[in-house]
Amino acid sequence: MVNWNDKFAERTAYMKRSTIREILKLTQRPEVISFAGGLPAPELFPLERVQAAARAVLEQRGQQALQYSTTEGCDELRDWVAARLSRGGLTITRDNVLIVSGAQQAIDLVGRVLLDDGDTVVLENPTYLGMLAAWRPYNLHYSVIPTDADGLLVDRLDKVLVRRPKLIYLVPNFQNPQGITLSWERREQLVECLVEYGAVVIEDNPYGELRYSGSHIPSLYEFDASCRGSRSLDGHVIYAGTFSKILAPGLRLGWVAAPTPVIEKLVQAKQGADLQSGTLSQLVAYETCKDGFIEEHIERLRAVYRQRRDLMLAAMEEFFPQEARWSKPEGGLFLMVSLPEFLDASDLLKEAINRQVAFVPGQDFHVEGGYNTFRLNFSNAQPAQIEEGIRRLGRLLKDVVVRQPV
Amino acid sequence: MVNWNDKFAERTAYMKRSTIREILKLTQRPEVISFAGGLPAPELFPLERVQAAARAVLEQRGQQALQYSTTEGCDELRDWVAARLSRGGLTITRDNVLIVSGAQQAIDLVGRVLLDDGDTVVLENPTYLGMLAAWRPYNLHYSVIPTDADGLLVDRLDKVLVRRPKLIYLVPNFQNPQGITLSWERREQLVECLVEYGAVVIEDNPYGELRYSGSHIPSLYEFDASCRGSRSLDGHVIYAGTFSKILAPGLRLGWVAAPTPVIEKLVQAKQGADLQSGTLSQLVAYETCKDGFIEEHIERLRAVYRQRRDLMLAAMEEFFPQEARWSKPEGGLFLMVSLPEFLDASDLLKEAINRQVAFVPGQDFHVEGGYNTFRLNFSNAQPAQIEEGIRRLGRLLKDVVVRQPV
Repeated sequence: MVNWNDKFAERTAYMKRSTIREILKLTQRPEVISFAGGLPAPELFPLERVQAAARAVLEQRGQQALQYSTTEGCDELRDWVAARLSRGGLTITRDNVLIVSGAQQAIDLVGRVLLDDGDTVVLENPTYLGMLAAWRPYNLHYSVIPTDADGLLVDRLDKVLVRRPKLIYLVPNFQNPQGITLSWERREQLVECLVEYGAVVIEDNPYGELRYSGSHIPSLYEFDASCRGSRSLDGHVIYAGTFSKILAPGLRLGWVAAPTPVIEKLVQAKQGADLQSGTLSQLVAYETCKDGFIEEHIERLRAVYRQRRDLMLAAMEEFFPQEARWSKPEGGLFLMVSLPEFLDASDLLKEAINRQVAFVPGQDFHVEGGYNTFRLNFSNAQPAQIEEGIRRLGRLLKDVVVRQPV
Repeated sequence: MVNWNDKFAERTAYMKRSTIREILKLTQRPEVISFAGGLPAPELFPLERVQAAARAVLEQRGQQALQYSTTEGCDELRDWVAARLSRGGLTITRDNVLIVSGAQQAIDLVGRVLLDDGDTVVLENPTYLGMLAAWRPYNLHYSVIPTDADGLLVDRLDKVLVRRPKLIYLVPNFQNPQGITLSWERREQLVECLVEYGAVVIEDNPYGELRYSGSHIPSLYEFDASCRGSRSLDGHVIYAGTFSKILAPGLRLGWVAAPTPVIEKLVQAKQGADLQSGTLSQLVAYETCKDGFIEEHIERLRAVYRQRRDLMLAAMEEFFPQEARWSKPEGGLFLMVSLPEFLDASDLLKEAINRQVAFVPGQDFHVEGGYNTFRLNFSNAQPAQIEEGIRRLGRLLKDVVVRQPV
């Protein structure tokens, strides 16, 4: 017999069944109102448009759609992404763009080409769980910088950048898990630091187009180009975007936009990883999005998600105890709740599921601390569910807050 | 400015622009008859069936098709793969199957969960280029075993297995690049070795269903189960298969079938890599293949590819100089030519492209040697092209063989 425990790579020792994941499986029971997922609302998928796109692609260029294509991605889709990112006087070309299988793969591939064992990476705390999972094999040192309502505390960057970390990872817009956004001033300040130290930031931006209130703030790559007085992307930012939140996650498509030397390395890493992203998916995504359709569609998403966010915030205001605090996101899919420090959200989850409502405890998003926080998703629940779910959760929180130790 | 050369991970120093890749770009010129690719024939894609499948999936369960699904893959596709692999009295279940983005990702994920820096891996020489690329970051030691017309020289395995390598990688059927197949006797012998040493083999089988002559030989996992007197897959074989050669590579779908502890680890690795393979692609693949369609379709592929293989072999017989030797594959997409040792196939390629015919030099497939070999693909060329291309190549070979040094 094979002793698999002897066979598995030492690097993977951290890979264990997660108890949280096991508990969250219970949220699939239909009687549970779940705010735990991170799913876009399926009833908003532009099904008819995708159907028409799939029909057109398979009728007009079916052989191409079913055949291998290049690792870089289909030309028309790369051009479309490049044109869409060419804002604020910037000229981004096809050569700056790699099509990947969702933003998760962007994170994974960036790790492959940039990270060596024991490297130092700068993170905001809390941060995106999937990044922590993807990069865990590298045994990284994390320089953790706290956040407030305006995002990363950028004035603490200087102190860590002098130690030349390999890169900085940020979700500047409507961050997962907190829903917070890095302010205009801090972006300027951040980019000045990047230029001064020759440092690199991964701008992971899955939610940036889902803004429901407040004013648009340009991307870090735009601030970077402007700070360098350049019209090109050949600066300090590696940008990751995705079709998952603006179109459909089931297509598994995203993109990296970066300086060409980075794209070339990423292409080689992707070749080893999966050769290329699906040709059919790419052509269907292009055919669906083109001619301005995706911009109209994003407007529709914004209208519905805005309403759900407002409803959730209003219900929290009404039903949550005053001891709870929460973020007030201007966009995205998530917000985060902080409880008094004597409470552990992982313990609460079991009781919440008994009461048929679910969330994700915040600890796994935190490099340190966060046990007394949890994340709520507002995009994938109907208005009536939002109100009833928050009412249930509010009752639970009031019950446990009262039980507080003297 | 960022100094990217300082930033890139040391592990990626091997990633350079390949001169061969650059030369092969020239083969895309329409006047060049290329036997260099590894593409299935696009005119054989079952376009109408895929169209009908896409229509049915999007009409009947469009929301599901466009939404996130589980990392493991869609249930019906996993069940279908499991049932299809349950041969020879074996019972393979959904829990033994992970859906991946092509067999290339199977190789990559297996590397992630099994390989540590400096591990030893047993390979046949030559072997699949894409495996060498995917696993290069691990700085592996290769125990290289030669092949003959019956595949790996299995009687040399004992000597390397005593040193407990992490795993063995094999393409037992119609191997890329040689087209050779591991014989029945050697499979029995190999599996006895596995059981004796508790060793593990990756059975990479993209071409196994494309047999044009000779008799079917069961898979290594079947020999393994039979040798262990078991009806389960929980043995010594990790099996990788793909839809790329039997249906369409543009869907980017394959599968791993393995003992459940391996599948569980692979699922966690895949979660970090890309969360899941495309939901739409998976449902379209299932809907296309089901009810026995794929078996009929494979019969059609076999008939056409058989003819192309026969045509190429006959043309080689007619036009190639007697100094050249080549494999006579019973299936798959490739065959391999060996030239007298004073010839370097990489040098020949430039001259071949001048004469408007192309191949892939064999050196990159070899861990050692092989500079005097090249690979020909026969699946993706029309009969007239095969004859004319082999005629051009034969003329070139005769010219250079005559120039031989005294």
